[in-house]
Amino acid sequence: MKYCSNCGNAVVQEIPLGDNRQRYVCHSCDFIHYQNPRVIVGVLPVYEEKILLCRRAIEPRLGLWTLPAGFLENGESTLEGALRECYEESYATVVEPHLYALFDIPQIHQVYVFYRAKMQRPEYAVSSESSEVALFSEDQIPWDELAFPVVERTLLHFLEDRKAGLFNVKHEQIQKPWKSTRSN
Amino acid sequence: MKYCSNCGNAVVQEIPLGDNRQRYVCHSCDFIHYQNPRVIVGVLPVYEEKILLCRRAIEPRLGLWTLPAGFLENGESTLEGALRECYEESYATVVEPHLYALFDIPQIHQVYVFYRAKMQRPEYAVSSESSEVALFSEDQIPWDELAFPVVERTLLHFLEDRKAGLFNVKHEQIQKPWKSTRSN
Repeated sequence: MKYCSNCGNAVVQEIPLGDNRQRYVCHSCDFIHYQNPRVIVGVLPVYEEKILLCRRAIEPRLGLWTLPAGFLENGESTLEGALRECYEESYATVVEPHLYALFDIPQIHQVYVFYRAKMQRPEYAVSSESSEVALFSEDQIPWDELAFPVVERTLLHFLEDRKAGLFNVKHEQIQKPWKSTRSN
Repeated sequence: MKYCSNCGNAVVQEIPLGDNRQRYVCHSCDFIHYQNPRVIVGVLPVYEEKILLCRRAIEPRLGLWTLPAGFLENGESTLEGALRECYEESYATVVEPHLYALFDIPQIHQVYVFYRAKMQRPEYAVSSESSEVALFSEDQIPWDELAFPVVERTLLHFLEDRKAGLFNVKHEQIQKPWKSTRSN
Protein backbone atom coordinates (compact mmCIF):
# COMPACT_ATOMS: atom_id res chain seq x y z
CA MET A 1 0.00 0.00 0.00
CA LYS A 2 1.45 3.34 -1.10
CA TYR A 3 -1.54 5.66 -1.42
CA CYS A 4 -4.64 6.38 0.64
CA SER A 5 -7.68 4.70 -0.93
CA ASN A 6 -9.83 7.39 0.66
CA CYS A 7 -8.10 10.57 -0.54
CA GLY A 8 -5.32 9.46 -2.91
CA ASN A 9 -2.43 11.00 -0.98
CA ALA A 10 0.65 9.02 0.09
CA VAL A 11 0.37 6.92 3.24
CA VAL A 12 3.07 6.28 5.83
CA GLN A 13 3.69 3.26 8.04
CA GLU A 14 3.52 4.07 11.73
CA ILE A 15 1.99 2.95 15.00
CA PRO A 16 -1.18 4.99 15.58
CA LEU A 17 -1.87 6.49 19.01
CA GLY A 18 -3.35 3.85 21.29
CA ASP A 19 -2.31 1.03 18.97
CA ASN A 20 0.72 -1.27 19.15
CA ARG A 21 1.17 -2.27 15.50
CA GLN A 22 2.45 -0.66 12.35
CA ARG A 23 -0.43 0.50 10.15
CA TYR A 24 -0.71 2.38 6.91
CA VAL A 25 -1.83 5.85 7.99
CA CYS A 26 -2.88 8.82 5.88
CA HIS A 27 -1.90 12.17 7.36
CA SER A 28 -4.00 14.04 4.80
CA CYS A 29 -7.39 12.58 5.79
CA ASP A 30 -6.40 10.76 9.04
CA PHE A 31 -7.56 7.40 7.71
CA ILE A 32 -5.96 4.29 9.21
CA HIS A 33 -5.84 1.40 6.74
CA TYR A 34 -6.06 -1.87 8.66
CA GLN A 35 -4.99 -5.06 6.92
CA ASN A 36 -6.39 -8.32 8.18
CA PRO A 37 -6.23 -12.04 7.42
CA ARG A 38 -8.48 -13.49 4.77
CA VAL A 39 -10.81 -16.45 5.07
CA ILE A 40 -10.70 -19.31 2.59
CA VAL A 41 -13.71 -21.60 2.49
CA GLY A 42 -14.01 -25.02 0.94
CA VAL A 43 -15.84 -28.32 0.77
CA LEU A 44 -14.86 -31.96 1.09
CA PRO A 45 -17.49 -33.45 -1.28
CA VAL A 46 -18.20 -37.14 -0.79
CA TYR A 47 -20.09 -39.43 -3.17
CA GLU A 48 -20.67 -42.86 -1.68
CA GLU A 49 -17.14 -43.95 -0.67
CA LYS A 50 -15.34 -41.49 -2.93
CA ILE A 51 -14.00 -37.96 -2.52
CA LEU A 52 -14.16 -35.26 -5.19
CA LEU A 53 -10.88 -33.54 -6.05
CA CYS A 54 -10.09 -30.83 -8.60
CA ARG A 55 -6.89 -30.47 -10.59
CA ARG A 56 -5.94 -26.81 -10.50
CA ALA A 57 -6.05 -25.00 -13.84
CA ILE A 58 -4.71 -21.79 -12.28
CA GLU A 59 -1.78 -20.68 -10.19
CA PRO A 60 -0.72 -21.20 -7.46
CA ARG A 61 -0.09 -24.96 -7.60
CA LEU A 62 -1.27 -25.31 -11.19
CA GLY A 63 -1.69 -28.97 -12.11
CA LEU A 64 -1.97 -30.23 -8.52
CA TRP A 65 -5.09 -31.63 -6.89
CA THR A 66 -7.18 -29.76 -4.36
CA LEU A 67 -10.48 -29.74 -2.57
CA PRO A 68 -12.69 -27.00 -4.04
CA ALA A 69 -12.06 -23.82 -2.01
CA GLY A 70 -11.53 -20.10 -2.39
CA PHE A 71 -11.71 -16.70 -0.75
CA LEU A 72 -14.81 -15.86 1.25
CA GLU A 73 -16.61 -12.88 -0.27
CA ASN A 74 -18.30 -9.98 1.49
CA GLY A 75 -21.97 -10.67 2.09
CA GLU A 76 -21.82 -14.44 2.27
CA SER A 77 -21.53 -16.90 5.15
CA THR A 78 -18.64 -19.35 5.28
CA LEU A 79 -21.07 -22.09 4.23
CA GLU A 80 -22.48 -20.08 1.32
CA GLY A 81 -18.96 -19.29 0.20
CA ALA A 82 -17.88 -22.92 0.46
CA LEU A 83 -20.86 -24.13 -1.58
CA ARG A 84 -20.26 -21.39 -4.17
CA GLU A 85 -16.59 -22.31 -4.52
CA CYS A 86 -17.48 -26.00 -4.77
CA TYR A 87 -19.84 -25.28 -7.64
CA GLU A 88 -17.56 -22.78 -9.39
CA GLU A 89 -14.59 -25.14 -9.36
CA SER A 90 -16.27 -28.49 -9.95
CA TYR A 91 -19.94 -27.88 -10.90
CA ALA A 92 -20.79 -30.23 -8.04
CA THR A 93 -23.67 -29.53 -5.68
CA VAL A 94 -23.69 -31.02 -2.21
CA VAL A 95 -26.14 -31.65 0.63
CA GLU A 96 -25.90 -32.13 4.41
CA PRO A 97 -22.92 -29.83 4.93
CA HIS A 98 -21.19 -29.89 8.31
CA LEU A 99 -18.46 -27.59 9.60
CA TYR A 100 -15.42 -29.85 9.60
CA ALA A 101 -12.08 -28.07 9.95
CA LEU A 102 -10.55 -24.71 10.82
CA PHE A 103 -6.91 -24.21 9.84
CA ASP A 104 -4.76 -21.25 10.81
CA ILE A 105 -1.88 -20.29 8.50
CA PRO A 106 -0.72 -17.11 10.25
CA GLN A 107 2.45 -16.76 8.17
CA ILE A 108 0.37 -16.01 5.08
CA HIS A 109 -2.53 -14.33 6.93
CA GLN A 110 -5.08 -17.01 6.11
CA VAL A 111 -7.81 -18.88 7.96
CA TYR A 112 -9.29 -21.92 6.20
CA VAL A 113 -12.79 -23.22 6.94
CA PHE A 114 -13.78 -26.58 5.44
CA TYR A 115 -17.17 -28.25 5.34
CA ARG A 116 -17.75 -31.94 4.66
CA ALA A 117 -20.82 -32.66 2.56
CA LYS A 118 -22.49 -35.30 0.43
CA MET A 119 -23.02 -35.45 -3.31
CA GLN A 120 -26.34 -37.06 -4.17
CA ARG A 121 -25.24 -37.90 -7.70
CA PRO A 122 -21.78 -38.26 -9.32
CA GLU A 123 -22.29 -35.06 -11.29
CA TYR A 124 -19.38 -32.67 -11.79
CA ALA A 125 -17.40 -31.09 -14.60
CA VAL A 126 -14.22 -29.23 -15.42
CA SER A 127 -14.34 -25.46 -15.02
CA SER A 128 -12.22 -22.40 -15.69
CA GLU A 129 -10.41 -23.16 -12.43
CA SER A 130 -10.14 -26.96 -12.71
CA SER A 131 -8.63 -28.80 -15.66
CA GLU A 132 -9.87 -32.13 -14.31
CA VAL A 133 -12.42 -33.13 -11.69
CA ALA A 134 -12.71 -36.67 -10.42
CA LEU A 135 -13.91 -38.94 -7.62
CA PHE A 136 -11.22 -40.82 -5.73
CA SER A 137 -11.53 -43.83 -3.47
CA GLU A 138 -9.15 -43.88 -0.50
CA ASP A 139 -6.50 -45.93 -2.30
CA GLN A 140 -6.64 -43.68 -5.39
CA ILE A 141 -5.95 -40.35 -3.68
CA PRO A 142 -2.95 -38.66 -5.35
CA TRP A 143 -1.12 -37.94 -2.09
CA ASP A 144 2.06 -36.79 -3.81
CA GLU A 145 0.22 -34.35 -6.04
CA LEU A 146 -1.92 -32.47 -3.54
CA ALA A 147 -1.86 -28.69 -3.89
CA PHE A 148 -1.93 -27.54 -0.26
CA PRO A 149 -1.17 -28.87 3.22
CA VAL A 150 -4.76 -28.13 4.33
CA VAL A 151 -6.00 -30.53 1.63
CA GLU A 152 -3.81 -33.38 2.89
CA ARG A 153 -4.75 -32.70 6.49
CA THR A 154 -8.49 -32.53 5.74
CA LEU A 155 -8.36 -35.76 3.74
CA LEU A 156 -6.37 -37.59 6.42
CA HIS A 157 -8.79 -36.45 9.13
CA PHE A 158 -11.79 -37.46 7.10
CA LEU A 159 -10.49 -40.94 6.27
CA GLU A 160 -9.57 -41.54 9.89
CA ASP A 161 -12.91 -40.24 11.17
CA ARG A 162 -14.81 -42.31 8.66
CA LYS A 163 -13.10 -45.46 9.93
CA ALA A 164 -13.96 -44.48 13.50
CA GLY A 165 -17.48 -43.40 12.55
CA LEU A 166 -17.13 -40.10 14.42
CA PHE A 167 -16.66 -36.68 12.81
CA ASN A 168 -15.53 -33.98 15.24
CA VAL A 169 -14.59 -30.47 14.12
CA LYS A 170 -10.82 -30.24 13.62
CA HIS A 171 -8.59 -27.30 14.47
CA GLU A 172 -4.94 -27.02 13.49
CA GLN A 173 -2.23 -24.55 12.68
CA ILE A 174 -0.23 -25.10 9.48
CA GLN A 175 3.45 -24.20 9.75
CA LYS A 176 5.40 -23.11 6.70
CA PRO A 177 7.66 -24.66 5.48
CA TRP A 178 5.39 -27.61 5.87
CA LYS A 179 6.32 -31.23 6.46
CA SER A 180 3.80 -33.88 5.58
CA THR A 181 2.66 -35.93 8.55
CA ARG A 182 1.40 -38.76 6.40
CA SER A 183 2.97 -41.96 7.67
CA ASN A 184 2.66 -44.29 4.69
CA MET B 1 -12.60 3.19 -1.78
CA LYS B 2 -11.98 6.04 -4.19
CA TYR B 3 -8.30 5.82 -5.08
CA CYS B 4 -5.90 3.03 -5.95
CA SER B 5 -3.68 2.21 -2.97
CA ASN B 6 -1.05 1.00 -5.42
CA CYS B 7 -0.70 4.02 -7.75
CA GLY B 8 -2.93 6.76 -6.32
CA ASN B 9 -5.20 7.16 -9.35
CA ALA B 10 -9.00 6.95 -9.17
CA VAL B 11 -10.57 3.48 -9.13
CA VAL B 12 -13.84 2.43 -10.75
CA GLN B 13 -16.33 -0.22 -9.72
CA GLU B 14 -16.79 -2.92 -12.33
CA ILE B 15 -16.85 -6.67 -12.84
CA PRO B 16 -13.38 -7.77 -13.95
CA LEU B 17 -13.00 -10.22 -16.83
CA GLY B 18 -13.57 -13.76 -15.60
CA ASP B 19 -15.13 -12.55 -12.35
CA ASN B 20 -18.80 -12.22 -11.40
CA ARG B 21 -18.70 -9.52 -8.74
CA GLN B 22 -18.22 -5.77 -8.65
CA ARG B 23 -14.66 -4.90 -7.58
CA TYR B 24 -12.70 -1.71 -7.24
CA VAL B 25 -10.44 -1.72 -10.30
CA CYS B 26 -7.63 0.65 -11.25
CA HIS B 27 -7.32 1.24 -14.97
CA SER B 28 -3.99 3.04 -14.51
CA CYS B 29 -2.06 0.13 -12.99
CA ASP B 30 -4.59 -2.73 -13.58
CA PHE B 31 -4.80 -3.52 -9.88
CA ILE B 32 -7.97 -5.21 -8.64
CA HIS B 33 -8.76 -4.32 -5.02
CA TYR B 34 -10.59 -7.23 -3.42
CA GLN B 35 -12.50 -6.63 -0.21
CA ASN B 36 -13.15 -9.57 2.06
CA PRO B 37 -14.81 -10.36 5.40
CA ARG B 38 -12.87 -9.89 8.59
CA VAL B 39 -12.33 -12.38 11.39
CA ILE B 40 -13.09 -11.50 15.00
CA VAL B 41 -11.55 -13.73 17.64
CA GLY B 42 -12.47 -14.01 21.30
CA VAL B 43 -12.38 -16.03 24.48
CA LEU B 44 -14.96 -17.28 26.93
CA PRO B 45 -12.79 -17.21 30.08
CA VAL B 46 -14.00 -19.41 32.93
CA TYR B 47 -12.83 -19.32 36.54
CA GLU B 48 -14.29 -22.15 38.60
CA GLU B 49 -18.06 -21.77 38.00
CA LYS B 50 -17.86 -18.16 36.81
CA ILE B 51 -17.49 -16.46 33.43
CA LEU B 52 -15.43 -13.33 32.82
CA LEU B 53 -17.20 -10.45 31.07
CA CYS B 54 -15.97 -6.97 30.14
CA ARG B 55 -18.01 -3.77 30.12
CA ARG B 56 -17.15 -1.95 26.90
CA ALA B 57 -15.35 1.38 27.35
CA ILE B 58 -15.44 2.05 23.60
CA GLU B 59 -17.96 2.18 20.78
CA PRO B 60 -19.79 0.29 19.45
CA ARG B 61 -22.03 -0.81 22.35
CA LEU B 62 -20.25 1.35 24.89
CA GLY B 63 -21.35 0.41 28.40
CA LEU B 64 -22.60 -3.05 27.52
CA TRP B 65 -21.03 -6.36 28.53
CA THR B 66 -19.05 -8.56 26.19
CA LEU B 67 -16.70 -11.50 26.05
CA PRO B 68 -13.19 -10.25 25.25
CA ALA B 69 -12.81 -10.29 21.46
CA GLY B 70 -11.45 -8.25 18.58
CA PHE B 71 -10.15 -8.26 15.02
CA LEU B 72 -7.66 -10.94 14.07
CA GLU B 73 -4.37 -9.37 12.99
CA ASN B 74 -2.08 -10.38 10.16
CA GLY B 75 0.58 -12.83 11.34
CA GLU B 76 -1.33 -14.40 14.19
CA SER B 77 -3.45 -17.53 14.47
CA THR B 78 -7.06 -17.31 15.61
CA LEU B 79 -5.97 -18.68 18.98
CA GLU B 80 -3.09 -16.22 19.36
CA GLY B 81 -5.44 -13.39 18.43
CA ALA B 82 -8.09 -14.56 20.87
CA LEU B 83 -5.58 -14.79 23.74
CA ARG B 84 -4.17 -11.36 22.85
CA GLU B 85 -7.61 -9.78 22.81
CA CYS B 86 -8.48 -11.46 26.10
CA TYR B 87 -5.40 -9.99 27.72
CA GLU B 88 -5.73 -6.56 26.11
CA GLU B 89 -9.34 -6.16 27.19
CA SER B 90 -9.29 -7.82 30.62
CA TYR B 91 -5.66 -8.50 31.61
CA ALA B 92 -6.76 -12.10 32.12
CA THR B 93 -4.60 -15.01 31.03
CA VAL B 94 -6.17 -18.38 30.30
CA VAL B 95 -5.12 -21.99 29.87
CA GLU B 96 -6.54 -25.06 28.10
CA PRO B 97 -8.13 -23.19 25.20
CA HIS B 98 -10.52 -25.10 22.94
CA LEU B 99 -12.11 -23.95 19.70
CA TYR B 100 -15.74 -23.45 20.69
CA ALA B 101 -17.85 -21.48 18.23
CA LEU B 102 -17.83 -20.12 14.70
CA PHE B 103 -20.44 -17.47 13.89
CA ASP B 104 -21.16 -16.07 10.45
CA ILE B 105 -22.55 -12.53 10.20
CA PRO B 106 -22.58 -12.12 6.42
CA GLN B 107 -24.54 -8.87 6.48
CA ILE B 108 -21.61 -7.09 8.12
CA HIS B 109 -18.88 -9.20 6.52
CA GLN B 110 -17.72 -10.80 9.76
CA VAL B 111 -16.73 -14.26 10.94
CA TYR B 112 -16.41 -14.76 14.71
CA VAL B 113 -14.24 -17.48 16.23
CA PHE B 114 -14.54 -18.09 19.98
CA TYR B 115 -12.39 -20.24 22.25
CA ARG B 116 -13.42 -21.46 25.69
CA ALA B 117 -10.59 -21.48 28.21
CA LYS B 118 -9.84 -21.62 31.91
CA MET B 119 -8.49 -18.95 34.23
CA GLN B 120 -6.17 -20.46 36.83
CA ARG B 121 -6.57 -17.51 39.15
CA PRO B 122 -9.25 -14.77 39.44
CA GLU B 123 -6.85 -12.14 38.13
CA TYR B 124 -8.08 -9.45 35.75
CA ALA B 125 -8.32 -5.69 35.53
CA VAL B 126 -9.95 -2.82 33.68
CA SER B 127 -8.23 -1.67 30.51
CA SER B 128 -8.45 1.07 27.91
CA GLU B 129 -11.19 -1.00 26.24
CA SER B 130 -13.08 -2.19 29.35
CA SER B 131 -14.44 0.11 32.04
CA GLU B 132 -15.27 -2.86 34.25
CA VAL B 133 -14.23 -6.51 34.26
CA ALA B 134 -15.95 -9.08 36.46
CA LEU B 135 -16.69 -12.76 37.02
CA PHE B 136 -20.33 -13.78 36.78
CA SER B 137 -22.03 -16.92 38.00
CA GLU B 138 -24.85 -18.19 35.78
CA ASP B 139 -27.57 -16.38 37.69
CA GLN B 140 -25.62 -13.10 37.67
CA ILE B 141 -25.12 -12.79 33.90
CA PRO B 142 -26.45 -9.40 32.69
CA TRP B 143 -28.53 -10.86 29.85
CA ASP B 144 -30.26 -7.57 29.07
CA GLU B 145 -27.00 -5.66 28.86
CA LEU B 146 -24.97 -7.87 26.54
CA ALA B 147 -23.21 -6.05 23.70
CA PHE B 148 -23.57 -8.51 20.81
CA PRO B 149 -25.73 -11.46 19.72
CA VAL B 150 -22.64 -13.68 19.49
CA VAL B 151 -21.98 -13.08 23.19
CA GLU B 152 -25.47 -14.21 24.19
CA ARG B 153 -25.30 -17.23 21.90
CA THR B 154 -21.86 -18.27 23.16
CA LEU B 155 -22.91 -17.94 26.80
CA LEU B 156 -26.15 -19.88 26.24
CA HIS B 157 -24.29 -22.70 24.48
CA PHE B 158 -21.66 -22.86 27.18
CA LEU B 159 -24.13 -22.98 30.05
CA GLU B 160 -26.13 -25.69 28.30
CA ASP B 161 -23.03 -27.72 27.41
CA ARG B 162 -21.70 -27.42 30.95
CA LYS B 163 -24.93 -28.92 32.30
CA ALA B 164 -24.69 -31.74 29.77
CA GLY B 165 -20.95 -32.20 30.37
CA LEU B 166 -20.23 -32.19 26.63
CA PHE B 167 -18.65 -29.32 24.66
CA ASN B 168 -19.01 -29.64 20.89
CA VAL B 169 -17.91 -26.90 18.50
CA LYS B 170 -20.86 -24.67 17.61
CA HIS B 171 -21.62 -23.16 14.23
CA GLU B 172 -24.35 -20.58 13.61
CA GLN B 173 -25.31 -17.71 11.39
CA ILE B 174 -26.42 -14.47 13.05
CA GLN B 175 -29.22 -12.64 11.26
CA LYS B 176 -29.57 -8.89 11.60
CA PRO B 177 -31.88 -7.51 12.90
CA TRP B 178 -31.41 -10.04 15.60
CA LYS B 179 -34.02 -11.52 17.92
CA SER B 180 -32.86 -13.04 21.16
CA THR B 181 -33.60 -16.73 21.43
CA ARG B 182 -33.26 -16.74 25.20
CA SER B 183 -36.39 -18.27 26.66
CA ASN B 184 -36.33 -17.08 30.26
